[in-house]
Amino acid sequence: MQNLQDTITAPATPAGVSALAVVRVSGNDAIAIANKCFDKDIATADGYTIHYGHIVDGDVRVDEVLVSIFKNPHSYTGEDSVEISGHGSPYITRRIIETLLKSGARMAEPGEFTLRAFLNQKMDLAQAEAVADMISSNSEASLQMALSQMRGGFSNDIAILRQELIDFAALIELENDFGEEDVEFADRPKLKALIARLLTQIEKLRSSFASGNVLKNGINTVIAGKPNAGKSTLLNALLNEERAIVSEIAGTTRDTIEEVFTLKGIQFRLIDTAGLRESEDAIERIGVGKTKESMNKAELLVYLFDISITSPTQLKEELLALPHIKQTILVANKAESGSYKKEDWPENTVFTSAKNKDIETLVAELERVASHYEFGNETVVNNARHADALAKSSEALQKVLNGIDTELTSDMVALDIRNALYQLGLITGEVTNDEVLDSIFTRFCIGK
Amino acid sequence: MQNLQDTITAPATPAGVSALAVVRVSGNDAIAIANKCFDKDIATADGYTIHYGHIVDGDVRVDEVLVSIFKNPHSYTGEDSVEISGHGSPYITRRIIETLLKSGARMAEPGEFTLRAFLNQKMDLAQAEAVADMISSNSEASLQMALSQMRGGFSNDIAILRQELIDFAALIELENDFGEEDVEFADRPKLKALIARLLTQIEKLRSSFASGNVLKNGINTVIAGKPNAGKSTLLNALLNEERAIVSEIAGTTRDTIEEVFTLKGIQFRLIDTAGLRESEDAIERIGVGKTKESMNKAELLVYLFDISITSPTQLKEELLALPHIKQTILVANKAESGSYKKEDWPENTVFTSAKNKDIETLVAELERVASHYEFGNETVVNNARHADALAKSSEALQKVLNGIDTELTSDMVALDIRNALYQLGLITGEVTNDEVLDSIFTRFCIGK
Repeated sequence: MQNLQDTITAPATPAGVSALAVVRVSGNDAIAIANKCFDKDIATADGYTIHYGHIVDGDVRVDEVLVSIFKNPHSYTGEDSVEISGHGSPYITRRIIETLLKSGARMAEPGEFTLRAFLNQKMDLAQAEAVADMISSNSEASLQMALSQMRGGFSNDIAILRQELIDFAALIELENDFGEEDVEFADRPKLKALIARLLTQIEKLRSSFASGNVLKNGINTVIAGKPNAGKSTLLNALLNEERAIVSEIAGTTRDTIEEVFTLKGIQFRLIDTAGLRESEDAIERIGVGKTKESMNKAELLVYLFDISITSPTQLKEELLALPHIKQTILVANKAESGSYKKEDWPENTVFTSAKNKDIETLVAELERVASHYEFGNETVVNNARHADALAKSSEALQKVLNGIDTELTSDMVALDIRNALYQLGLITGEVTNDEVLDSIFTRFCIGK
Repeated sequence: MQNLQDTITAPATPAGVSALAVVRVSGNDAIAIANKCFDKDIATADGYTIHYGHIVDGDVRVDEVLVSIFKNPHSYTGEDSVEISGHGSPYITRRIIETLLKSGARMAEPGEFTLRAFLNQKMDLAQAEAVADMISSNSEASLQMALSQMRGGFSNDIAILRQELIDFAALIELENDFGEEDVEFADRPKLKALIARLLTQIEKLRSSFASGNVLKNGINTVIAGKPNAGKSTLLNALLNEERAIVSEIAGTTRDTIEEVFTLKGIQFRLIDTAGLRESEDAIERIGVGKTKESMNKAELLVYLFDISITSPTQLKEELLALPHIKQTILVANKAESGSYKKEDWPENTVFTSAKNKDIETLVAELERVASHYEFGNETVVNNARHADALAKSSEALQKVLNGIDTELTSDMVALDIRNALYQLGLITGEVTNDEVLDSIFTRFCIGK
């Protein structure tokens, strides 16, 4: 664990030539250190004020900047903090940071600002994790879920469950103090009822993880079909559907997410099956190791066939050869090419003409799939660490139930209750350890 | 030219997953528009204050942000302005901007914030150009020069030259009003003396362009030599020299500038000669079109030879085959491999062992070259547009001199003076036109 008495600094915006770049400073000496590097006196400046001036390294001017002051506890970290907004040149950002380092700050570790916010009780651990989710949110669903978690909804639910259990734990622990005397302060039937209720709630939370995961990471989707069924054309039509909206706003790049599209705020992430990229022939390749592996991760299969050359019998055979994927949308493409009877085809088939960009029926069906996951304001688990802690606390509570039923000694029962409390506490950080904190915060970006 | 009554918005920080992202808003309605998108009332907030709250799009929360308020004229643009500092997710930045657009802002053109600053007389044109130089500064020299130009030193010099000329122009114009009467209000010998003085100063500024260009863009350098003279090893040694300093600060990327190193604040930009990259044999390739072209841009040639296998006579031959480059540093590499007599080699030869990273003599020599360009506080022209305007005003002033000598009529002389004034005025923007403004500001990044 880093020394929290230090004053830390880091760039808070991406490196790149841009209008502005922001450097953060936080810690006991943040204002004093910034003051040494600034050509105006901000030693006694009020919080939430902005100051115009220059960063100076000795006699050398480094940049013309705006300095924002935040005072303990009214800052992100809960410490005295300063944000320096300068010209967006990576060289200048480097020089500003050098100047701050010379004046007594040290470089922040990844996530150290948020770690400090957690340690200073500005947020609990689940909220701190939601900060990371905010930053990586890339769809309305993932954003709204992160915002909800930052507001502490999930943490509250966990805290309530935990508090009820703590009260009982205290009674059980009391029994232990009486040793062999065989007293029962904790009403066993009531405890069983409580645990049953807790288990129901925990299971409900656990079962929300699948949908929470989709909200956060999108729906893993495979588009497959025989060669020339029109997969590329369909894909382009789907991607264009969204591009039109996206490209209205200049200055945002989307270069790394070319094979993702968003409908109703949910991302559909196209799995890179070998078939999709290198060959039109996904069918032939199904069964090949790598593709199969990808397919197993998929939640949705969009299966495309050329209705102008496929018979219903042929389609049945093709479908039999497919791996099992949770949901499938059957797409009869090239519907423009001739007459067909809808009743000859499976009931849920959608008819498209990718060539003519007539894909509304498919888009509607995809939106129907997306709407299953729509984020209301209910509590949703979207974090594998939380799901794991919930599973372990569920296990411990099951043991408590068994222990009561088999009349285990109260110290054994207390042990399992304590374990359940520990696991629930890990989620919000009421109990924690360096390993957990490290694994959470080292995944943050620098400056956060 | 864009409508300046509009309120504009744009992201001010690079797209990327990061701690913070800043969105700028500027214009008459900046505060009213931001107020519509914010869940606290900032309609009457003071300038230079910060407000914590949420960006809201109707009922939907978009982000938890800090909003900074700047009031006309105490802002970058001179207009009412708002800076919104949110979570560093490109998706969120897009959503914030969408929300602002819905509320009445429009997307800013590249450089439009700075254009408005110029039009609102927060800075002159040369200072506005220095803002772009600040953002792209990547060495101490380019940074210090941009800072100096932003302070207006260069603009002042030009304004003084121009004012002296304006006073005379007025007198000459007066003569025109008297038409055929052949009066001379403007003392011709005094005018000639003034123009001679102006020309001296303009020529001095013009001649500073070469060094200004180096300060801004670095020294174009070619490292050449026969195969196996050790060019790659030398290059790595030079780059490492700097990397050690650079890599101390995490979070800054240097990916696009791998073949640049900085000494004494001056960049040495290694020209990508075909020989350097694809083959060790630069000599063989000299004379080949593309390489030759690059060579012509070079200001410095570092010529490397293997002292263990090269005789002074051979070296002489090699040097004769080289193209003419302003400055050459001769490097006798592999000096570790044996004995040699310094007096057998050209006087300015430096002896290195790239393999052993023993390159101090070369570094010292490069630093000596760099120090020729060191930036004092003198006025330096570093902008091709300014150099061009200075050249044209110089030309016009020569014509004025000739006109006086050949006793041209005062209206002809006035024409040339007016032209010189026009050219000088273009530099600071005292005279301007849409074409000039466009060509300057469209080169800015978005959000600046």
